[in-house]
Amino acid sequence: MKNLSQKCILVSIFAQNVKSYRLQQGLSQEQLAERAGVHRTYIGMLEREEKNVTIYNIERIAIALGLEAYQLLKSKND
Amino acid sequence: MKNLSQKCILVSIFAQNVKSYRLQQGLSQEQLAERAGVHRTYIGMLEREEKNVTIYNIERIAIALGLEAYQLLKSKND
Repeated sequence: MKNLSQKCILVSIFAQNVKSYRLQQGLSQEQLAERAGVHRTYIGMLEREEKNVTIYNIERIAIALGLEAYQLLKSKND
Repeated sequence: MKNLSQKCILVSIFAQNVKSYRLQQGLSQEQLAERAGVHRTYIGMLEREEKNVTIYNIERIAIALGLEAYQLLKSKND
């Protein structure tokens, strides 16, 4: 599936944030997927910017990381 | 279509933010829809919390309002 971020910068901001917070917390993609209640391959696809993620899953992933959802949409220079 | 926010608080945070920024800028739902390039009824459905909005449309609506996307997911007490 083609990379979506050419069309939507937010896809790559979100992907980078999920990956960096996940690694900070020492979680594998499968562990985060399990916490968030999504399929175990979902986090990998999301981090490869292949997912047009919904607000539902943004919330579930934020909760799984112990963050506020808006934090996952903030770019480093915001 | 049933109200989605019982399942996802972010749906109502996003709906309230879109509505308040839209009204602050004196835009009708149809005017905002046109700017964001979405169907003219989409903004109404979104503000009634009937949409599981995607990250694509979060970005398009943020751009149409001249905001950063994360601002639309921030609740008043964040």
